[in-house]
Amino acid sequence: MPKISLRGHEMPASPIRRLAPLADVAKAKGTKVYHLNIGQPDLPTPKVALDAIRDIHRKVLEYSPSDGYRSYREKLVGYYDKFNIKLTADDIIITTGGSEAVLFAFLSCLNPGDEIIVPEPAYANYMAFAISAGAVIRTVVSTIEDGFALPPIEKFEALINEKTKGIMICNPNNPTGYLYTRSEMNQIRDLVKKYDLYLFSDEVYREFIYTGSPYISAFHLDGIEENVVLIDSVSKRYSECGIRIGALITKNKELRKVVMKFCQARLSPPLIGQIIAEASLDAPDEYMRDTYDEYVERRKCLIDGLNKIPGVYSPIPMGAFYTVARLPVDDADKFCAWCLSDFSYEGETVMMAPASGFYTTEGAGRDEVRIAYVLKKHDLSRALFILKKALEEYNKGKK
Amino acid sequence: MPKISLRGHEMPASPIRRLAPLADVAKAKGTKVYHLNIGQPDLPTPKVALDAIRDIHRKVLEYSPSDGYRSYREKLVGYYDKFNIKLTADDIIITTGGSEAVLFAFLSCLNPGDEIIVPEPAYANYMAFAISAGAVIRTVVSTIEDGFALPPIEKFEALINEKTKGIMICNPNNPTGYLYTRSEMNQIRDLVKKYDLYLFSDEVYREFIYTGSPYISAFHLDGIEENVVLIDSVSKRYSECGIRIGALITKNKELRKVVMKFCQARLSPPLIGQIIAEASLDAPDEYMRDTYDEYVERRKCLIDGLNKIPGVYSPIPMGAFYTVARLPVDDADKFCAWCLSDFSYEGETVMMAPASGFYTTEGAGRDEVRIAYVLKKHDLSRALFILKKALEEYNKGKK
Repeated sequence: MPKISLRGHEMPASPIRRLAPLADVAKAKGTKVYHLNIGQPDLPTPKVALDAIRDIHRKVLEYSPSDGYRSYREKLVGYYDKFNIKLTADDIIITTGGSEAVLFAFLSCLNPGDEIIVPEPAYANYMAFAISAGAVIRTVVSTIEDGFALPPIEKFEALINEKTKGIMICNPNNPTGYLYTRSEMNQIRDLVKKYDLYLFSDEVYREFIYTGSPYISAFHLDGIEENVVLIDSVSKRYSECGIRIGALITKNKELRKVVMKFCQARLSPPLIGQIIAEASLDAPDEYMRDTYDEYVERRKCLIDGLNKIPGVYSPIPMGAFYTVARLPVDDADKFCAWCLSDFSYEGETVMMAPASGFYTTEGAGRDEVRIAYVLKKHDLSRALFILKKALEEYNKGKK
Repeated sequence: MPKISLRGHEMPASPIRRLAPLADVAKAKGTKVYHLNIGQPDLPTPKVALDAIRDIHRKVLEYSPSDGYRSYREKLVGYYDKFNIKLTADDIIITTGGSEAVLFAFLSCLNPGDEIIVPEPAYANYMAFAISAGAVIRTVVSTIEDGFALPPIEKFEALINEKTKGIMICNPNNPTGYLYTRSEMNQIRDLVKKYDLYLFSDEVYREFIYTGSPYISAFHLDGIEENVVLIDSVSKRYSECGIRIGALITKNKELRKVVMKFCQARLSPPLIGQIIAEASLDAPDEYMRDTYDEYVERRKCLIDGLNKIPGVYSPIPMGAFYTVARLPVDDADKFCAWCLSDFSYEGETVMMAPASGFYTTEGAGRDEVRIAYVLKKHDLSRALFILKKALEEYNKGKK
């Protein structure tokens, strides 16, 4: 049997999905599993988007342009303008989900062995795409004690060497829910400018910011316009994870030319997804407001509930729909697996993503989990109750 | 401005799409362009598939499983069985088009610097995906004089060294339309077995075989079951290029486990595309037959027409819907560009894919073009007439 590639061996199993087989076993035994592990919003997709599907009267489901339909990209210009991000349709390349945007950004900007610096905990798949591109992610740890604020910028600077090509952030942050302040963003900008780095900025959660603090996009930062690569996706804002439509946005023309070669190789992004995403831009203000209000309440329910469980601590996330919480357990990996394989309370259990998968630093996040609040409040409350029972039972023998 | 990656520089521009800007200029001038360049079937998508779109009554367009819906994979087992390919649903991983299947196969099997051997002319994007994975494509030239038959297997063996990890074929072949014979396939099998190589076999055109010769799938070859990675796509057989649904199929369990890590990183293949592809399996026999009959007639129309033009020669393709033809020109790249930028006849011109983009051997295919027969016969005849006029005018000054 021929050999698997080295990067295949290196690829981490997804911290969000790797427990799925255990969940399947639990479900097969009849246990109800509350999914706190995955950022799959349960809120409805906008009606105008669902209507668009039924309005498709094409005879042939043909390729679209490799950079996506111009009509969609032109309409997106107006969308970004509302966030004071000034673009032209040419700046926007439509991708197959935000995932492909990250992969193409890395393939286009990074050579094998090149390094990017990422504050962690970080979205685990950045690592997977870096490995795919042969690049190396160096991390700076942010801590739960500091509410996952940006670590001192000196720690980033200390990692910079001749192989360093960029910094990657996610803002608002998955998995922590942290929102970078203007001052933090300016520190990042200064570093990017000083060393002429790329700034890869994943901003797919911009709709979900729950504090009065402003959303500072990488495109709001002066003097690094050619360095910024914005990663976007419609998955979260319209509950459209399944349509796989994202975008890679950059004002750097030379970079766009290269990204387009990767786009042409894979021919085109999904046709029907683009039709849906374009229609979604007409979702009424009430849709976005209702969605927003719902997350605000769930956030309160989750964070209050978590901090009431003895030994559990969660900072208050400012955006997105995740939090990283500390649990009173020796090893969250084991505990999360145990919840699925050995535990149930009144026929129910919880599935969470062990936070260790969001860190590269050995031992970091060992007692932390990422929890997504994409369940109805009623279910969220019940899931918190089950979690409390699970912690009691798990720790019973250990005291 | 930070630097572009080396592989970004190396990436070839798509031979199929790189002339698109010239075509846009021609169209802007009011010129009608016959698209002989791209394998985008104009035939209708099956009605049952289009109906499935309008039948989607989901409230949330959510992620699907990373390996695709089980119901779809189970139904595919029956589809492949009709071609005497015996699979289980577990052997099949649904991908975002055949493109992603090739990329994930290379990422999972090949290390940077590893080599695969491909007979050329070959589908140009194999090269793009190899560059993405840092792998090297070594080619063995097949010639128009031999009708693009498999080159002597000794030429493959001569290229094998410690870095060689696999052989890649496309059967029936894009761009040549060649169908490998049983004897040729057995030669490939023996080599794969002798050196324990991967056999990447792209068989997306299996529906379109116009001779009495049998279709020999890589899965029909005994003794290399664990070595075969089959690449598939619904794009061509159902005129569904836009839905981006393909598959990576292998009986090699260890390999599947690694491929799944790449699949989980990009979360899921398109949801709606899978619904459409699954429904398409119920397309009536008449749909496939009508489609087939149409291509048979177009093939006759195209090949007869080409060989009637003075100085033009095309072998008779046995499958797919392309041919590689030799034109009486010094440089087909220049000629194809000139057809768009400088030529029109009665307000019309043709767009073809210069064959040089399908070869890596310097100078090979210099006077060849790939022509797709995905136009209605009437348009195909007219396009042939325009091509004849273009050749006359192009060569007028040169004699």
